[in-house]
Amino acid sequence: MTIQVFGHKSPDTDSTGSPLIWAWYLNEVRGEDARAVLLGEPNTEAAFMLDRWGFDKPEIIGDVDEGAPVAIVDTNNPAELPASINKADIRSIIDHHKLVGGIETKGPIQIRVEPLACTATILYKMIGKDMARAPKSIKGAMLTCILSDTLAFRSPTTTQEDKAIAHALAEELGVDVEGYAEEMFAAKSDVSAFSDAELLRMDSKEYEVDGTKLRVSVLETTAPDQILSRKDDLKSSMVDVAKEDGADEVLLFVIDILKEEATLLVPNDRVKGIAEASFDTQVSGDTVVLPGVMSRKKQIMPVLKAG
Amino acid sequence: MTIQVFGHKSPDTDSTGSPLIWAWYLNEVRGEDARAVLLGEPNTEAAFMLDRWGFDKPEIIGDVDEGAPVAIVDTNNPAELPASINKADIRSIIDHHKLVGGIETKGPIQIRVEPLACTATILYKMIGKDMARAPKSIKGAMLTCILSDTLAFRSPTTTQEDKAIAHALAEELGVDVEGYAEEMFAAKSDVSAFSDAELLRMDSKEYEVDGTKLRVSVLETTAPDQILSRKDDLKSSMVDVAKEDGADEVLLFVIDILKEEATLLVPNDRVKGIAEASFDTQVSGDTVVLPGVMSRKKQIMPVLKAG
Repeated sequence: MTIQVFGHKSPDTDSTGSPLIWAWYLNEVRGEDARAVLLGEPNTEAAFMLDRWGFDKPEIIGDVDEGAPVAIVDTNNPAELPASINKADIRSIIDHHKLVGGIETKGPIQIRVEPLACTATILYKMIGKDMARAPKSIKGAMLTCILSDTLAFRSPTTTQEDKAIAHALAEELGVDVEGYAEEMFAAKSDVSAFSDAELLRMDSKEYEVDGTKLRVSVLETTAPDQILSRKDDLKSSMVDVAKEDGADEVLLFVIDILKEEATLLVPNDRVKGIAEASFDTQVSGDTVVLPGVMSRKKQIMPVLKAG
Repeated sequence: MTIQVFGHKSPDTDSTGSPLIWAWYLNEVRGEDARAVLLGEPNTEAAFMLDRWGFDKPEIIGDVDEGAPVAIVDTNNPAELPASINKADIRSIIDHHKLVGGIETKGPIQIRVEPLACTATILYKMIGKDMARAPKSIKGAMLTCILSDTLAFRSPTTTQEDKAIAHALAEELGVDVEGYAEEMFAAKSDVSAFSDAELLRMDSKEYEVDGTKLRVSVLETTAPDQILSRKDDLKSSMVDVAKEDGADEVLLFVIDILKEEATLLVPNDRVKGIAEASFDTQVSGDTVVLPGVMSRKKQIMPVLKAG
């Protein structure tokens, strides 16, 4: 049976590229039968990567069958995976997020989690010498994933390993890192096709802090005005999204990749309280700028307080 | 702060040796400050290993402090770890068991699980070229762990990697594998110092099957008669152990390493039902021999039915 390789729901670049990379490795190096699939429509940057490196868009699947062999990359969180994930035959988990618990396996499997910025960096290390057999498309996907997750090395999640591997790949591919990252971020920043609710759910994690359920959304962009010009609509959409998703509040951080700052939308007093308690700031009006804040994992999640 | 490295409660050879190996690596190669500790008295084979390779017995600890840095080897099961484990600062988990869930980390950490017979095999692979710096004692501990977990390659959990690494270590150390394994198993088989209840809990895992709570205990030995001659006392001790530990039944499998078979004690009709439903056998009397059964992980857990 074919091993289905996938990342998390609402696939970003790493959750689109890493399944393609790992499926290539399983097929071509390990001689297994594997294929990359997606758990939703890839975001605009991921779609750019597919196009740029000549990949067909992988099939989008809903659930997994009982006993179906699967390989998970870029998450270990059952909430971000198909509903029947614990009934599947999970062969491996490769990830760079904190362990949240909830996945159980019937036997010992291959699990590899490392505190690196990007799953593709871990895959590069695991593939090792066999990278010599990788086609340009696989190397290109790896480079794109690393530049995406590190925001071209601007994010504080970036490690020396992510950086060194990205530079090695770029040199081999003859790609200019800064110029290529600019193209990627332009693709990511073009969010005109998305509804307000889609934007709020595009790169979003659920998080409970002091009993308050938060949907913590980020939008990384080089064109923050394109999003902030829609802030009144976004604020009113937050009410519906929170209700539909069973959250108390939606926090939307618009991350300006070039200025290296985040703008948090402040639709009401509760979010104002959260912002002031968490970020040592004073809020007046319906937005607040948080200088230097680039990473949900490193700079938002660890400091969030209910207010 | 010193990183405490430990395996599971009721430490066997792998849970005694692997903390010593990983603490050596963290100290000597990575330049961190680490020390091996134990979560209980090591078994007789583990004690033999400490003596044979010149280790002092590591300190036995009870709980861990909030925020204390720890590295976990040979388990990912909170039930086998200190009560406050999720309040500690877990730096890494290296294991070869199925994922049971229940450990949560605050950030991404290093996790490595592989379907190999022994944690020490994974450590050998992770240490890689730096094995050249390892003293004899560390190599000796690794060899002992692998021979213990594979029952000198007799267990069906044994992989080619476990075998190849053990042979490489034995050659470097000038150790005759079969002769050395015999010494180890003789040490493990000398259980005269243990009470019946201690024997029942020595190498034991809790397991729920179809709503029945089982304490599944194995005793690997080259002298099964030493244990089976105590079977009446063991059967009556099972009643108390089950009650104290909140289990419905205790299943004791006496594994004859040389004959490659297990003898299951059958103290009552419920265990008889479990044995007949699980192992395709007929039970008459208070024991049943299960030819070829050597591994709880591979041959007992996956087939257990409540009867």
